[in-house]
Amino acid sequence: MSLAIISPGRDPQVWIEALTFHQPDINIQVYPNIDRPEEVEMALLWQHPPGYLSTFPNLKLISSLGAGVDHILSDSAVPESMPIVRIVDEKLTWSMTNYVIMGVLNFHRQITRYQADQKHKVWDMSNPEIPVKVGVMGVGALGGDVLDKLSYMGFSVFGFGFTEKDDFPHPYFSKNHLQDFLNEINVLVCLLPLTPDTENILNLSFFRKCKPGTYLINVARGKHLVEEDLIPALESGFLSGALLDVYRTEPLPGDHSFWEEGKIQITPHIASVTNPLAASPQIIENFRRLKANQPLLNLVNRQKGY
Amino acid sequence: MSLAIISPGRDPQVWIEALTFHQPDINIQVYPNIDRPEEVEMALLWQHPPGYLSTFPNLKLISSLGAGVDHILSDSAVPESMPIVRIVDEKLTWSMTNYVIMGVLNFHRQITRYQADQKHKVWDMSNPEIPVKVGVMGVGALGGDVLDKLSYMGFSVFGFGFTEKDDFPHPYFSKNHLQDFLNEINVLVCLLPLTPDTENILNLSFFRKCKPGTYLINVARGKHLVEEDLIPALESGFLSGALLDVYRTEPLPGDHSFWEEGKIQITPHIASVTNPLAASPQIIENFRRLKANQPLLNLVNRQKGY
Repeated sequence: MSLAIISPGRDPQVWIEALTFHQPDINIQVYPNIDRPEEVEMALLWQHPPGYLSTFPNLKLISSLGAGVDHILSDSAVPESMPIVRIVDEKLTWSMTNYVIMGVLNFHRQITRYQADQKHKVWDMSNPEIPVKVGVMGVGALGGDVLDKLSYMGFSVFGFGFTEKDDFPHPYFSKNHLQDFLNEINVLVCLLPLTPDTENILNLSFFRKCKPGTYLINVARGKHLVEEDLIPALESGFLSGALLDVYRTEPLPGDHSFWEEGKIQITPHIASVTNPLAASPQIIENFRRLKANQPLLNLVNRQKGY
Repeated sequence: MSLAIISPGRDPQVWIEALTFHQPDINIQVYPNIDRPEEVEMALLWQHPPGYLSTFPNLKLISSLGAGVDHILSDSAVPESMPIVRIVDEKLTWSMTNYVIMGVLNFHRQITRYQADQKHKVWDMSNPEIPVKVGVMGVGALGGDVLDKLSYMGFSVFGFGFTEKDDFPHPYFSKNHLQDFLNEINVLVCLLPLTPDTENILNLSFFRKCKPGTYLINVARGKHLVEEDLIPALESGFLSGALLDVYRTEPLPGDHSFWEEGKIQITPHIASVTNPLAASPQIIENFRRLKANQPLLNLVNRQKGY
């Protein structure tokens, strides 16, 4: 019996090394060189070819190689009964929160304004801070940590999600109160999971509901944003700028309009990258639990989509 | 009896409005239009002309209009016996900490690298984080808050100061252990008060003691840095970059080499600006205590220099 790593276009070697470091006798086959598919009981996936899993007659468990599972759930060939687990990694949360705080502070303290002033040798001390109130859409492990840290730093924060919540430690708005949420904030952070409810949520009609000049940070998935609506929203003043880490097509195509738009800052999907060495013990533990018929870690709820 | 505001080159109007807002019947004279100097009992100073205080025969108390008092102590005409108070303002601390965290995160997450990549349409996901350990020189109200917040965010932090400290809540090094302090860190934040001990402390011989590639953030005073030593330290690799908010001459002269050095990021002394509306109650309260012969708030220790 063995594991299969199926992550086309990404280097699987770091995962092989990390898994072997934690369990030297582990048996791993790597796509596309899988010559004993009947031995595979657990598949580790990132952007696998749709339908490919039917190759494995004895597959019992799927693990995402990251926090998201939309790339797995979108494949209709994945059997409904197959358990899916995902990576929950403190280091991943830490990196994501740092990235978001960086984005909030660079907007609040106008880093690009001072960079332009330096270029033109301008000394302008006026209005050094843009007051900010930060809204986070998606209040799971990632969004919750962003809210906790920004709140500790003394910022006003607000959460938004699709479910009702009691006892949430920050002001919270559920899906029927989107306009109330947007009325409170001028920095909008998208950390939603990608589900049928949230795909394309960031569109022109949504941006019209924002306070003029709202700053957008999208660190969730490219498909949350209707990309052709972003520049019109910036030009109309509904938004004042955007920091994006994710795109509908990655790498971002060379002819994409985002590269040259001065109000958009781009990073290449590096807000938070799963660390194989930190994440491998979870994978190994889930493999052990599968064999021992014990409850799995970080099991995905397919109804919720995460 | 009255107060005098002496802050040449800065607009005194915001202070007049803030003080009058909190105490409508207050009597304020403003430099250079002080026609009844004999009435002045308290002077509010920012960069006053040296020797000018001898104009006031009945002066009993000096207040800085900011957190620093080096501009007052450097005037040998200020009588040794004259009490000096300064502004301690939570908003000032909050702004300073946010600025420093922004600088730390922009180095850690390489914001200028990704800006250059965007300009050249480069998609490079490799090595998205520079590991950082942050050292803060000066652990008073400002430095202490920076250490608390960065530590809460999960960063390794270290403090340095000129006095011995017991029970400090973070790893701490006193003046005889500078090299041990510098061995621990690769981001150096200067938040020292400006005193004879600390003037010119950031010089080439100091930078040689840093770990290669250390990143410098100076938000204290321009006179902490020997400016002609900074570019050589960057060129030699002792430092990898610098974020500066303060300079020996402000505004920074148009022909200064810092403007065009790609490894130096400049802001125009805006890391933290005292908010007159928030600070005025302290000034009014100290004026009241002076009249009532009660202990003053935020009294400066002239031996320590802050």
